[in-house]
Amino acid sequence: MTVVVKLGGSVVTDKSAPETVAEDVLADLAAAIGDADLSDLVVVHGAGSFGHPVAAEHGASSTAGTRDPAAVRDISGVMERLNDAVVGALADAGVPAVPVHPCSASHRTEDGTLQFPTDALEAMLGEGFVPVLHGDVITHAGEGATILSGDEIVTHVADDFDADRVGICSTVPGVFDEDGDVVPEITDYDDVAAALGESAATDVTGGMAAKVRALLDLGAPAFVFGPDALAAFLAGEDAGTRIEG
Amino acid sequence: MTVVVKLGGSVVTDKSAPETVAEDVLADLAAAIGDADLSDLVVVHGAGSFGHPVAAEHGASSTAGTRDPAAVRDISGVMERLNDAVVGALADAGVPAVPVHPCSASHRTEDGTLQFPTDALEAMLGEGFVPVLHGDVITHAGEGATILSGDEIVTHVADDFDADRVGICSTVPGVFDEDGDVVPEITDYDDVAAALGESAATDVTGGMAAKVRALLDLGAPAFVFGPDALAAFLAGEDAGTRIEG
Repeated sequence: MTVVVKLGGSVVTDKSAPETVAEDVLADLAAAIGDADLSDLVVVHGAGSFGHPVAAEHGASSTAGTRDPAAVRDISGVMERLNDAVVGALADAGVPAVPVHPCSASHRTEDGTLQFPTDALEAMLGEGFVPVLHGDVITHAGEGATILSGDEIVTHVADDFDADRVGICSTVPGVFDEDGDVVPEITDYDDVAAALGESAATDVTGGMAAKVRALLDLGAPAFVFGPDALAAFLAGEDAGTRIEG
Repeated sequence: MTVVVKLGGSVVTDKSAPETVAEDVLADLAAAIGDADLSDLVVVHGAGSFGHPVAAEHGASSTAGTRDPAAVRDISGVMERLNDAVVGALADAGVPAVPVHPCSASHRTEDGTLQFPTDALEAMLGEGFVPVLHGDVITHAGEGATILSGDEIVTHVADDFDADRVGICSTVPGVFDEDGDVVPEITDYDDVAAALGESAATDVTGGMAAKVRALLDLGAPAFVFGPDALAAFLAGEDAGTRIEG
């Protein structure tokens, strides 16, 4: 049973204050993960108020590269600090968490394809460790370096490991329909196109529409839920919105 | 022209004080690297007073594993801090240095073989970055996690990249003969067996004998030299002891 869970950057940080960890929320999430005691668990977290402002400062996005090594150092540096906080909170909750920095292990080819061998992650799972990855800045052939989002890591790792369940812990309790109610299940993008927008062009920032499209393409059920539902998700229950294409 | 240079842990740290960077020496070495302005350069550094005491505390070596995730976090944590200092000094000297943490990218199989894909490093070199790696703790199938030495990284990366030159910047000016004089060239281990000891068993700590044996097996000339000779090595000159099998 392999489970990949993402802790949203807006969940584990205070987005209104630069480089500020949401200590209490993070401790609660870590406690839920510690209580669940899953065997093969991969944790991914987003960038929140750590990575995003620094990336924007350097003009770096998932497609716009930076050739400035200082940008790479700055972005990877703040993300290492946030990762340290997340790994620390998980460790305090008894999770055998170990840090994994994608900038050291992955890159993009010229056409933007992510190359991220997961053999080292697999070895970590085999030894009982819980690898904790994060959104990062990675080398991009011909572009310098671009941003790798936590969402992109989740789908890559879930695909590579043929994950059984994927959880996206977000600030919202699920995917909303046009009335603002949580959609219990999405099996086709058309189910929510009206609420999320039909065109990929309306979603350049990689919001909920991009998440849903990517999760529909996975070979595993994915769930988008709020912090309060993490324990239920980890217990194998449906939580928030179930997405399976 | 691909060059791999290792900055010894005893060179860049003060071995007599825990977790203390040898700031002045490090700044001088970084300046020499900045002045050299090489195109395809990989820098590796050792652990010195950062990694060694913490690894010893947790009973971890290159063969003795630890199953304690706290050990992995502690060792990788202190090494990230030393790496941050080395990358920072290189950046101050104008080197386009970016950090690479081996624990995120590599592991050992059950028989101890290092698995460390270097595609991400190659992409960094292609984009003009100088990756800066370090001795670290990595997952070891069946053993938990073991130590990966800077020396092992050097030979692995030099082999994978078919490096043109390899430099080992040590605290000593070269490999000594029985009279304490620097041997100018070693082409066979027998040249220095009397001075270094014939048996691998006398070298469990991975000292000079192990270095020389590994460097003789490389397909590139390697040099062992002191800090003062780094500029000469980077300028393409012979420095300290030349080792080529």
